[in-house]
Amino acid sequence: MDTTPEALDQVLTQAALAAPTLAALSPASRAALLVSLARALDSDRDGLIEIAERETGLTRARLSGEVTRTATQLRLFADAAILGAHLDVRIDEFDPEFALGERPDLRRTHVPVGPVLNFAASNFPFAFSVLGGDSASILAAGCPLVVKAHSGHPALSDATAAVAQRVIAGLNLPAGTLQVIHGQRAGVTALKDARIHAGSFTGSTHGGRILADIAAARPAPIPFYGELGSVNPVFITREAIAERGALLAPQYLASVSGSAGQLCTKPGLVFAAVNDDFIRSLVAAASGSGSGSASAPSAEHRMLGPRIADAYRVGLHEVLAIDGVEPLVSGSIRIDEHGDGWVTPTIVRVTLDTFRAHRALLAEELFGPFSVVVDVPEDTDLAPLVGEFVTGTLTGTIHLSAGERSGQTELRPALEALIAELTAHAGRVVFDGWPTGVAVTPAQQHGGPWPATTNDASTSVGTGALSRFLRPVAFQNAPSAFLPPALQDENPLGIPQARSAAGQSLSWGRAVG
Amino acid sequence: MDTTPEALDQVLTQAALAAPTLAALSPASRAALLVSLARALDSDRDGLIEIAERETGLTRARLSGEVTRTATQLRLFADAAILGAHLDVRIDEFDPEFALGERPDLRRTHVPVGPVLNFAASNFPFAFSVLGGDSASILAAGCPLVVKAHSGHPALSDATAAVAQRVIAGLNLPAGTLQVIHGQRAGVTALKDARIHAGSFTGSTHGGRILADIAAARPAPIPFYGELGSVNPVFITREAIAERGALLAPQYLASVSGSAGQLCTKPGLVFAAVNDDFIRSLVAAASGSGSGSASAPSAEHRMLGPRIADAYRVGLHEVLAIDGVEPLVSGSIRIDEHGDGWVTPTIVRVTLDTFRAHRALLAEELFGPFSVVVDVPEDTDLAPLVGEFVTGTLTGTIHLSAGERSGQTELRPALEALIAELTAHAGRVVFDGWPTGVAVTPAQQHGGPWPATTNDASTSVGTGALSRFLRPVAFQNAPSAFLPPALQDENPLGIPQARSAAGQSLSWGRAVG
Repeated sequence: MDTTPEALDQVLTQAALAAPTLAALSPASRAALLVSLARALDSDRDGLIEIAERETGLTRARLSGEVTRTATQLRLFADAAILGAHLDVRIDEFDPEFALGERPDLRRTHVPVGPVLNFAASNFPFAFSVLGGDSASILAAGCPLVVKAHSGHPALSDATAAVAQRVIAGLNLPAGTLQVIHGQRAGVTALKDARIHAGSFTGSTHGGRILADIAAARPAPIPFYGELGSVNPVFITREAIAERGALLAPQYLASVSGSAGQLCTKPGLVFAAVNDDFIRSLVAAASGSGSGSASAPSAEHRMLGPRIADAYRVGLHEVLAIDGVEPLVSGSIRIDEHGDGWVTPTIVRVTLDTFRAHRALLAEELFGPFSVVVDVPEDTDLAPLVGEFVTGTLTGTIHLSAGERSGQTELRPALEALIAELTAHAGRVVFDGWPTGVAVTPAQQHGGPWPATTNDASTSVGTGALSRFLRPVAFQNAPSAFLPPALQDENPLGIPQARSAAGQSLSWGRAVG
Repeated sequence: MDTTPEALDQVLTQAALAAPTLAALSPASRAALLVSLARALDSDRDGLIEIAERETGLTRARLSGEVTRTATQLRLFADAAILGAHLDVRIDEFDPEFALGERPDLRRTHVPVGPVLNFAASNFPFAFSVLGGDSASILAAGCPLVVKAHSGHPALSDATAAVAQRVIAGLNLPAGTLQVIHGQRAGVTALKDARIHAGSFTGSTHGGRILADIAAARPAPIPFYGELGSVNPVFITREAIAERGALLAPQYLASVSGSAGQLCTKPGLVFAAVNDDFIRSLVAAASGSGSGSASAPSAEHRMLGPRIADAYRVGLHEVLAIDGVEPLVSGSIRIDEHGDGWVTPTIVRVTLDTFRAHRALLAEELFGPFSVVVDVPEDTDLAPLVGEFVTGTLTGTIHLSAGERSGQTELRPALEALIAELTAHAGRVVFDGWPTGVAVTPAQQHGGPWPATTNDASTSVGTGALSRFLRPVAFQNAPSAFLPPALQDENPLGIPQARSAAGQSLSWGRAVG
């Protein structure tokens, strides 16, 4: 049931009340909260998965993996909170010799921004929902968390919140530490409320843009971190196709069809001069007769919800009606009596000319198990295609031959140009793999230029995500008695502290002679 | 003369053309550019200062200090570019034991965002203008720079650009590396252009908000870093006033009147239970008879331009008309036949009740040599005043007595509450000093919650400023032959590389037992 205006006001008051307590919490206490949440999620996993299966249509195996991912993610952020690199602590020593006159003692750390509103995703009911990646980073940063539940899995959201609230009460933390709200209207009202200091979102470009505009138009604007749509183009060199086209095809199909293609990193476009090996192997994999397909892609998979299914049905119909679109894998969508969509993967081939003529439809993301192979002429220079067809994207992928990988190839300049173009358009550049499967690690980058995200200076996966909910503060000439632990000379937290020694400024610029 | 639409288009094309070249430049080459710019600025300083003096009314001494600051700043950023901490390099080793299944080799660095538009400030014709702090960070980040010159010093902007372009040509860098445009219309057109990837600004809250809204409303929104207005409240404890009220007063006057109060860190509000010592010493300093005043604040100072002078005249008039506003230092503003304003500092005293009743006028920034002393009752708890009266601010200042500084005081909880409140509202918390004079150093934080800035996760002064113009990119399973130097295992740049060892994930969360 949608959160009423009165209940929402209460939620926001609780969040605001919790802010100073959470900001003052030690890193160890924040980590203890995250690890306790991970344990509770693990121990309640069976009951939660049962609800999720019913609400989302995702398979039990997939959901079980997602719970593990979510719990691991909470533990990773617990460690990150303790390691303290995200505080980016800098200490400038008092410097009477400073180049511009006496420099005071200056110490900079990061503080939590305050209550954050997190719009949960439809396609990851655990990993990008109530206790997902955004939530883990918000809590690790020390901010009260309000989750706008996704309408696709309201019961799971409430059940997960109940697990979390039990943990929070057990640790004697404020009730405003983590709260869940329901309904679009409540979400928008909360986003406009002065008590909310940042927003995060995972979902469609359309929905994300509306919310980003609301955040920017507030009397006091707030940062809004939206992870939106992405086409995830893949480029396969002629040598790579020749070397292992038959191997690449089933991997491609698996990447397109996993989770019924409802992943933001699904490879939506492949640019390659495909050969017979590739085609034969793709068709074989789709029919279940290939050697490379682990699960049977020919089996129907339920989509997340009726709205997503309907959009996919319409989009697929439009694309297949284009002259020159040749199905390589002829998938289907069937809408059942509940409005649910049941799908098998579709992969089509077009020539570069057809693609160019119909780019408005073919170069856009179609959320679901669908992908386009742009069959380019053999001698095509791939690098310029990025600038011509690719907007901002979460990932860009390149498949190279073994010889090309070594760098000992006359094509090196062309490959370097292709890599540079993808680097300029994507947040993650993948080599000889597929973009689905986003590792939760310190070096992960899940974000990219618009329209992949509303803010490409940040990531929504990996420990870098923490910094979205922090704000730097410098303390000038502060008495040691009142310095936050992170900034004390004794370094009681044992975190990285970058020191600028006195006298240093006199040599600035010397490094270049 | 305003930049024509044709000329602007040419500028933006040049900037876009320069982007790949600058992105590919080695850190040493970027540093060489910055140091060469610093040297050229130093060697042309006399001619430039002459133009600046004529255009801005700032004193020769102040302008000379500003050139030194600007050149030093360029050298600091040269060092930062070489040190490479801003790249925040993270390397996850390939990990077959990873908690969530095989982890690929993942390496994350930062790349320049592309051409950046920098709106120069009126009040710092060097340090926040063509070769100022934003420009230094944009060039150090590896982005082409387009400066929208401030209308207050167009000739200086062109002269500085000519110095820079000579350096750029001498280093065989693209002409699009640094370009200057003139006129509001050209600035707005450029901000809307797809070739511009980020904006920066130093100026008024009103103007900054208009530009921030334009940046957010683009078809492809871009980050906009506006450093806007600030009230910079100062809190003096009862013990500090008793201990050294006579010393604090002339320091206060100097901080209010320096650069004719046209500084974003001017202390606009002082909360204290003032005593006779403080008042007497303030009045003496203003009349030039005090011991603490280095320059004579009673001398008239020309304001930056007619528009600023007129706004100050109107604002001052409104404030002085409020019942209960008692001038402690009775300053003046005189508009000459050119429309230029000539000012001496004004400091007024109000009771807490008067302040509360007229907060709409009294708690707002008035740009110029004006400040308000809120004379609170002796037993007032200062911490709650922050939440009641202070919005986001660049700085918050606290003056403590020697005993309070030691922390050995029964008032400690009250002081901790005051510090916590200021930390929640300000970007820099200053102890026993004054907020003017912003050191250019690694630990500096010049930014704060709205309306101090449009983006409080960043700083516009200090090496942290660099990160505004960078975007993270991760390389997954990249062949070593094609890895950027920053990410190579051999670490040819000698920069910090944070490594995540294989096997590590199995112990995540263990730190908290």
